[in-house]
Amino acid sequence: MIDYEPFFSLAAATMRESAIRQMGAVLANAVDMISFAPGYPAEDTFPWQATAEIARELLTGADGSVLQYGPTRGHRPLREVIVGLMAERGVRAAVDDVLITTGSQQGLDLMARVLLDPGDVVLLELPSYTGAITAFRNVGASLVGVRQTEDGIDLDDLERTAAAVTAEGRRIKFLYVVPNFQNPTGQLLSPAKRRALIEWARRRHVLLLEDDPYRDLYFPDVATVHDTRPIAADDDENRVVYLSSFSKTLAPGFRVAWVSAPAAIIAKLEVAKQAEDLCTGPLDQRIVYEACRRGVLARQLPLLRAHYQHKRDVMVQALTRLLSGVVTWPDPRGGFFLWARLRAPLRSDVLQPLAQARGVIYVPGHAFFVNGTGHEFLRLSFSAPPPDRIELGVARLAAAIAEASDRAASISPAASHA
Amino acid sequence: MIDYEPFFSLAAATMRESAIRQMGAVLANAVDMISFAPGYPAEDTFPWQATAEIARELLTGADGSVLQYGPTRGHRPLREVIVGLMAERGVRAAVDDVLITTGSQQGLDLMARVLLDPGDVVLLELPSYTGAITAFRNVGASLVGVRQTEDGIDLDDLERTAAAVTAEGRRIKFLYVVPNFQNPTGQLLSPAKRRALIEWARRRHVLLLEDDPYRDLYFPDVATVHDTRPIAADDDENRVVYLSSFSKTLAPGFRVAWVSAPAAIIAKLEVAKQAEDLCTGPLDQRIVYEACRRGVLARQLPLLRAHYQHKRDVMVQALTRLLSGVVTWPDPRGGFFLWARLRAPLRSDVLQPLAQARGVIYVPGHAFFVNGTGHEFLRLSFSAPPPDRIELGVARLAAAIAEASDRAASISPAASHA
Repeated sequence: MIDYEPFFSLAAATMRESAIRQMGAVLANAVDMISFAPGYPAEDTFPWQATAEIARELLTGADGSVLQYGPTRGHRPLREVIVGLMAERGVRAAVDDVLITTGSQQGLDLMARVLLDPGDVVLLELPSYTGAITAFRNVGASLVGVRQTEDGIDLDDLERTAAAVTAEGRRIKFLYVVPNFQNPTGQLLSPAKRRALIEWARRRHVLLLEDDPYRDLYFPDVATVHDTRPIAADDDENRVVYLSSFSKTLAPGFRVAWVSAPAAIIAKLEVAKQAEDLCTGPLDQRIVYEACRRGVLARQLPLLRAHYQHKRDVMVQALTRLLSGVVTWPDPRGGFFLWARLRAPLRSDVLQPLAQARGVIYVPGHAFFVNGTGHEFLRLSFSAPPPDRIELGVARLAAAIAEASDRAASISPAASHA
Repeated sequence: MIDYEPFFSLAAATMRESAIRQMGAVLANAVDMISFAPGYPAEDTFPWQATAEIARELLTGADGSVLQYGPTRGHRPLREVIVGLMAERGVRAAVDDVLITTGSQQGLDLMARVLLDPGDVVLLELPSYTGAITAFRNVGASLVGVRQTEDGIDLDDLERTAAAVTAEGRRIKFLYVVPNFQNPTGQLLSPAKRRALIEWARRRHVLLLEDDPYRDLYFPDVATVHDTRPIAADDDENRVVYLSSFSKTLAPGFRVAWVSAPAAIIAKLEVAKQAEDLCTGPLDQRIVYEACRRGVLARQLPLLRAHYQHKRDVMVQALTRLLSGVVTWPDPRGGFFLWARLRAPLRSDVLQPLAQARGVIYVPGHAFFVNGTGHEFLRLSFSAPPPDRIELGVARLAAAIAEASDRAASISPAASHA
């Protein structure tokens, strides 16, 4: 029996399984589990009929390249469509500024490999998206968190943190930020802060990595498209690398996303992508292209906004009814996530097995913090379950929290004698 | 204008564009170019009708998971099918020994990241597949070539090379080998050498990375399925990590391949894949699964063997007619490639612009050599062009070689006076 441990690289030794994906595995093996864990879009919103129609037309064999190897940069007509989508978002990009990636996760991974040497510093929000944290950690980067206030990243803490890192002689390569309906907090970065970040990046001579998968999913009752204007739209100096995706608006199963960045960076990312997977699925890219060209995407967006806004309402109402005072949260203005805070001394990791035993899962908050804090938070995704399951899930969660509170109460007095 | 160079990682600074993909870009921009360059399968062999039928059934929306995020390890029924395919190849693998990858290129990249630290040594054949070379180089590995004879890797040179590397205090992590119809030489590794490699790996305590995309494409006139028995089939000690793919048997556009390896290695590769792309395209995986389950793959194989054997005949006959004595080659016994050697002093890189000007491209041999040699070789892929284009392409190549020979002849005497 061979011991394979001595064969693994240093990078492999430090790689950690994603907390979100772990919950996905729990889900796959469970019966009647209600999942607030992975940020899955609702499958009944996927454009099934249009996709089937497009696939039928693509798979006649008339165009053999549909199932052939494709260019690493991506299907050119799709890149041209994306130039148009970027323009709608206020960002001027040329075709050579766009690279198709196999999901935004690949964009994060490519950015990590192309920009980060071991020890390089990435600044990111406290909390931040686990998939980004993992991609940056896998190349040995040093991740330093910056606090957030209710309208996004705390600029004073950002400046203080950057100064401290620089004073230690460490190099900051970029700040990673999710400005629209952030994963996991659901927060929206204020317009003033967006402009301030560009100015800050210029002063510090660093890049910004703007990850924007949720921007089309603002909730019309409390937000508008103007609130979602990308940082990249006001970036006159080309300091912003911008990621977005079709996973939340068409379907994640296509694995089609993109990077928009200065052409010099795109060229490097392309070379890195060649060695990673040669090209993103050509059939998937054609389907996405046709869905854009035929207006399927445009027709989806208002439906999705209404769909997820309604689910937000259902979750907020259930939480208000069952957990008022025990759990607090900012009402989401878009996206997939509600960021709940437990009353002390409850901890989301201690609560987790109790919740799971009652048939509801979520992602414990500490998974999103690079500084080891966040045990009082839970990320609740309201995107996938139907409304009645959201209500039932919150009821199960409330029962688990009551049980955890009872345990905490019965332990605390004893502990205080110790 | 920002200079982005100082932002790039050391890894990015050494990343090089693939010579094969460069030729792909030439092809995409050319009119009437005949390509012997990228190893593209023939699009008219793709199972279009079966794929369209399967897609229609999958895209009704009845099973929402078809377009949802999927498990990182892959669609479980497909992994079970692959266990069956491995058994047919003589390899015992359990479901937990199988990971689906986004093409075999991702399998190579994941192996590089999970096993190789900068400076670690990978041994590989002279010449070897450029996609593997790039993936290993991108993590800073040191690549050391081993000579081949006509039945594959030279065991004496392997032992000598391994001893020399070890004597220098360097660590060999694995030997990379393509035993069946190797890319680029088309060679077939002899059964005795396959067994010897296992014994060698045991003695040296290293792993073997066996890359096997072409094994189903043996040519019945000169080879049998028995000739293609994987090294992994006789690996009692679990030293072999085995890669294979549906790209050459169904279609590359699905981007579905697999790694079969000891479960401990698969678990690490899975964690690395999470951060790279979360999962391989779920729709693509379902289509491939259904194509296997319904017998589409099994029906393809004899047709593909006949198809590519015929194209091999056409190329060999054209070369014999037009370039006998000027170019030599071993007749391919399977796969996509003919490995041609130019008579001295002709060089394939010097020939390349002349050939391209006449409307034919190939991959210059030196791209496949990690030791800077190989300028006398050309890799000619006969897989994609139809027979009449193969003949025309060889005619164009012959004209370019004649032109290059004339130039060489007119330069040589002058040079001899210098």
